[in-house]
Amino acid sequence: MSGNTLGTVFRVTTWGESHGGAIGAVVDGCPPGLPLSEETIQTALDRRKPGGQPFATPRQEADRVEILSGLFEGTTTGTPISLLIRNRDADSSAYENLRNVFRPGHGDYTYFKKYGRRDHRGGGRASGRETAARVAAGVIAAQVTAIVGIEVLAYTKALGGVHIAENRGTVTRESLEQTLFCPDKEAALRMAERLEEARQQGDSLGGIVEILVRGCPAGLGEPVFDKMDADLARALMSIGTVKGVEIGSGFAVADMKGSESNDPLSPDGFLSNSAGGILAGITNGEEIVIRVACKPIPSISRTQQTVDAEGNSTTLSIGGRHDVCVIPRIVPVCEAMVQIVLADHLLRQKAVKL
Amino acid sequence: MSGNTLGTVFRVTTWGESHGGAIGAVVDGCPPGLPLSEETIQTALDRRKPGGQPFATPRQEADRVEILSGLFEGTTTGTPISLLIRNRDADSSAYENLRNVFRPGHGDYTYFKKYGRRDHRGGGRASGRETAARVAAGVIAAQVTAIVGIEVLAYTKALGGVHIAENRGTVTRESLEQTLFCPDKEAALRMAERLEEARQQGDSLGGIVEILVRGCPAGLGEPVFDKMDADLARALMSIGTVKGVEIGSGFAVADMKGSESNDPLSPDGFLSNSAGGILAGITNGEEIVIRVACKPIPSISRTQQTVDAEGNSTTLSIGGRHDVCVIPRIVPVCEAMVQIVLADHLLRQKAVKL
Amino acid sequence: MSGNTLGTVFRVTTWGESHGGAIGAVVDGCPPGLPLSEETIQTALDRRKPGGQPFATPRQEADRVEILSGLFEGTTTGTPISLLIRNRDADSSAYENLRNVFRPGHGDYTYFKKYGRRDHRGGGRASGRETAARVAAGVIAAQVTAIVGIEVLAYTKALGGVHIAENRGTVTRESLEQTLFCPDKEAALRMAERLEEARQQGDSLGGIVEILVRGCPAGLGEPVFDKMDADLARALMSIGTVKGVEIGSGFAVADMKGSESNDPLSPDGFLSNSAGGILAGITNGEEIVIRVACKPIPSISRTQQTVDAEGNSTTLSIGGRHDVCVIPRIVPVCEAMVQIVLADHLLRQKAVKL
Amino acid sequence: MSGNTLGTVFRVTTWGESHGGAIGAVVDGCPPGLPLSEETIQTALDRRKPGGQPFATPRQEADRVEILSGLFEGTTTGTPISLLIRNRDADSSAYENLRNVFRPGHGDYTYFKKYGRRDHRGGGRASGRETAARVAAGVIAAQVTAIVGIEVLAYTKALGGVHIAENRGTVTRESLEQTLFCPDKEAALRMAERLEEARQQGDSLGGIVEILVRGCPAGLGEPVFDKMDADLARALMSIGTVKGVEIGSGFAVADMKGSESNDPLSPDGFLSNSAGGILAGITNGEEIVIRVACKPIPSISRTQQTVDAEGNSTTLSIGGRHDVCVIPRIVPVCEAMVQIVLADHLLRQKAVKL
Repeated sequence: MSGNTLGTVFRVTTWGESHGGAIGAVVDGCPPGLPLSEETIQTALDRRKPGGQPFATPRQEADRVEILSGLFEGTTTGTPISLLIRNRDADSSAYENLRNVFRPGHGDYTYFKKYGRRDHRGGGRASGRETAARVAAGVIAAQVTAIVGIEVLAYTKALGGVHIAENRGTVTRESLEQTLFCPDKEAALRMAERLEEARQQGDSLGGIVEILVRGCPAGLGEPVFDKMDADLARALMSIGTVKGVEIGSGFAVADMKGSESNDPLSPDGFLSNSAGGILAGITNGEEIVIRVACKPIPSISRTQQTVDAEGNSTTLSIGGRHDVCVIPRIVPVCEAMVQIVLADHLLRQKAVKL
Repeated sequence: MSGNTLGTVFRVTTWGESHGGAIGAVVDGCPPGLPLSEETIQTALDRRKPGGQPFATPRQEADRVEILSGLFEGTTTGTPISLLIRNRDADSSAYENLRNVFRPGHGDYTYFKKYGRRDHRGGGRASGRETAARVAAGVIAAQVTAIVGIEVLAYTKALGGVHIAENRGTVTRESLEQTLFCPDKEAALRMAERLEEARQQGDSLGGIVEILVRGCPAGLGEPVFDKMDADLARALMSIGTVKGVEIGSGFAVADMKGSESNDPLSPDGFLSNSAGGILAGITNGEEIVIRVACKPIPSISRTQQTVDAEGNSTTLSIGGRHDVCVIPRIVPVCEAMVQIVLADHLLRQKAVKL
Repeated sequence: MSGNTLGTVFRVTTWGESHGGAIGAVVDGCPPGLPLSEETIQTALDRRKPGGQPFATPRQEADRVEILSGLFEGTTTGTPISLLIRNRDADSSAYENLRNVFRPGHGDYTYFKKYGRRDHRGGGRASGRETAARVAAGVIAAQVTAIVGIEVLAYTKALGGVHIAENRGTVTRESLEQTLFCPDKEAALRMAERLEEARQQGDSLGGIVEILVRGCPAGLGEPVFDKMDADLARALMSIGTVKGVEIGSGFAVADMKGSESNDPLSPDGFLSNSAGGILAGITNGEEIVIRVACKPIPSISRTQQTVDAEGNSTTLSIGGRHDVCVIPRIVPVCEAMVQIVLADHLLRQKAVKL
Repeated sequence: MSGNTLGTVFRVTTWGESHGGAIGAVVDGCPPGLPLSEETIQTALDRRKPGGQPFATPRQEADRVEILSGLFEGTTTGTPISLLIRNRDADSSAYENLRNVFRPGHGDYTYFKKYGRRDHRGGGRASGRETAARVAAGVIAAQVTAIVGIEVLAYTKALGGVHIAENRGTVTRESLEQTLFCPDKEAALRMAERLEEARQQGDSLGGIVEILVRGCPAGLGEPVFDKMDADLARALMSIGTVKGVEIGSGFAVADMKGSESNDPLSPDGFLSNSAGGILAGITNGEEIVIRVACKPIPSISRTQQTVDAEGNSTTLSIGGRHDVCVIPRIVPVCEAMVQIVLADHLLRQKAVKL
């Protein structure tokens, strides 16, 4: 059923399969009068591009975005913005042997169970490639949130067992725009070593991305189901690789006392931020802090046990062009998803503020 | 703005403030012909009732539910089911001193920032009391999911620093229906000790709830934004106390390799369940495993630093009737939220299955 | 399936059957800070009350509305407003003979076909009584639209073959608040005669209601599916009795030329209003003009041919308490539906207006 | 705000401006396993193509549709279907003189008021060209409704003052696939004469389209706001040209008695069809009958009085390539909108039917 749209007022619909003709997004509900260009979107796409970082798949996609509607003489018109990205470098022949085999850790089995059939080429709709459309839409969302000065920064917090120290305060756009989107250069080197080891073993790695939102005004988020943290959790968990989402102190709250997890207020603002910028589902004006757990890429060359579509036992070694870790490529996707949720809630709040 | 409705086909809208006239829910989209009675709902409400467990608030609410519509001669009609629970034991005078002061860890400050005003009595809309309406609606959802044999079990996995061992396989409805909804009796005793300690200190505690779904057919969940795990994360994170949600191996995937996190398939099914029953956002027929982190109750009698509505510094010691921990009362709420999401996705899948 | 909610930002959900425990509505998305009281809503309910006008059913319902949530110290809080109206005077025994017979012109047959079962008492969910909840919700919508000075006036344009002359310009709230909500006193007398004749014949009558919206700013309505006229048509056609909706010149445009139907613009505004205040789905600042066709009440005492639930031929003469015409009681319902649509679009426009 | 999506389970989003890069649609929620091809859609597009009928604009658009996703080896996959139609023959220079002038009867003025800016070229988003995307999406909807044997036929009922006699019973797909989609050949000749007269006068004409739905099962449509007739009215009124919608007897019910408008039931079905196939918002298994009033094309070469963006009085004579009447080109659009609504309701009903 229809589940490819996100948002209430600022609405993003994505479409497309990895090896179909194209992928894309329709952004409906963008206010008129915002500056937008294909170049701005292209810059964002290039950040998540294969090959844009070491250890990424060598698949070379031009990933050229085309804005087909909703733009007139350089600014948005208020009508739907349609974004198109052609699939140019899709070599489906490499997937022919996967037509009747379910790859462990992938959606092959579940798509087959759900639909009774599936486009096996490159993961079809479940491919990470779909996230390019999210990044493109996120650029438009960022134009909306920029109006009130919101900035979203995502960076690599852990990869392959290397965790970096708590350093939210010092992370900046500049400090994270380096190897593996990791602001800790020394840790990034060790992460890179782990990636290389895993590649040689035919294996893959998981990690953690932390997302920070700065400049978000207090008052965004809706009781009771459309809470800001609920919508952020949904948006981030909708990224195929994500298996956990936490806000502020996150799972650590389980072992805390109220006197520790409550953030005292002073005339100058909150004195701590265990809440991660959200109280009762509504932003409190502090930095929003979110972490997501990313599972290892399921496509590995190590031999795995599986079954075919007839239920027969078989083994599988996945070749082809695959990343060793979704990090760093997932980092811009996380930023995009958070931007989309914030843009929606910003406009929703405008609707009822008298 | 309107954010009080959950679901696409099976839709739950809740309403009501802690100290208003009543709270309630409207359940729209329930199939006709299902058995339903006030008694069935009442039994579920009694599980989360104050005083239904030790260490809970002594506030005695009858919490009598009334079914006002959608029911005819003992079965559902297919039209909206309206549920009403009167607020009978609401003593608002105890909250008068909170009219102009923001309680740390509560939504007082953010509601004020969002709406410019707030119902300060008992937490208003942000009160945990709202979750009674969710539990009531969850009973109706459970009637829907029971059609295909789905069972949802939630239990206490950690409380006040006491974590119980991995024991999914052995948890049953019977084993968890005891002190603190904890299937490990020895651990439950220690948890109870921690609760008593915290109460004496005027403090509160956090914990972890694990939710298991058994008997769920493969194929539920929608690409790409309405993934099953995304919708579960949103629904659970919309409970005020929850600061983190994870599926299957959850945050542990960050340190795993693909060869570890991939679940091999055999002719007899999956050989492990790191995925927690969901692959690419769609159920795979295995047990669904979810954990949520619950923050300590923010209302504590220990003196806290805060500000009043004019921004002046002040201190606060919260008296009144408050739980020490949202566990165990939150446990039935977690079950309800998962049931609601499953019912919705079950009906959504029916819509497109030819 | 769930189809009992109207609106995107300002959302109204109604529930309840004619002879169940109660009927009601939940209004979600109402801005905070608006004045509201049960008395205001009661006044509106009394306008559509049985017996509030001659020729109406003598069924005496107190129809007392209770506001259960979303209101604090006399103004709205921004959270859902729950409205409850008990069914006090419901005598279901009179309907016992209809349990297995389908009344011509009613939803009996279609509800049975849709749900496989139905609440036969008083029309169940399909009863005109459901519209009381709409009127109550419409009062809240009117509080929203009043902010920008919108006024909605509905009146009787035709009844039982008596049509009144074009007189939009002179209709005022005062002129229509009289017999049959008809601003033409002489016509109202003739309409009353027709009603009496029909009553004596055991028959019923149809009519036309015209709705005028004054003070609506230009710019409300969304391309392309959520056009203002599309949403108005849907909202009005959702009233059970309505079989046609037209805007401005309506069906007369079929025989017009472009040079006649185009409204010329001058520096002082439009020089005519064939468009009825809406161009390309967006309000143009002129008076919005809508007409709806209301079918005769299907419950008549004249003997009718029908079938029972087993498909056997039978005849039926419907006794009990029934109006002869939905007019005048439907007139306040039409006002309410238009107010609800306008409130929603007003808030939607606020969301994106930078 | 976002208003470019129609449907709940079967969802259609259209995008694109008349003179932008392209127009298109995303269809989400289509069941998997349905046959689909670009050729099938192309055939439907050719029916509404400029030049496909006499008296249409000579603008020659290839209007080649491309299916970019959701299709695999000739059948639908269950994922979103993205449809793309490039704008190849768009000559914007002819519109340069309209940049600052509001055309009477068009959305120029209202778009300007709504958005503060507009794409003046060819009507932008308000152009009739947008309906090509609807027709394309309607083909997919028709694949869904064909599963249960639904057929939708629209034809010209009136044009330029020429009305054809009641002849529902005899209309067939073959009888209407001729000049002006009018099954009455003699009337079609007179309509053609009126069109030629109007063209010579530099004027335009209106008309009425009647849509028939055959083979629709009883039970589709949802109480109370998402009634079948309400959703049909909205979908059809969302076509820019439509100023009125009526079902069954429509506005004629105003002058009928209950004994006339009630359709008696017999063991063999309903004995008449004043209801037009819908009772209480739910289909009753009879033929669904809908009529829509289409206003004359607002673009006429006769001189009209208007104002420019600065509010100064001016006159306007619109040259360029314009139809004299939206009929016959609107006829396939009406079919498409009805198919989309029916497909959505068919799937919605499947969701809750146990």
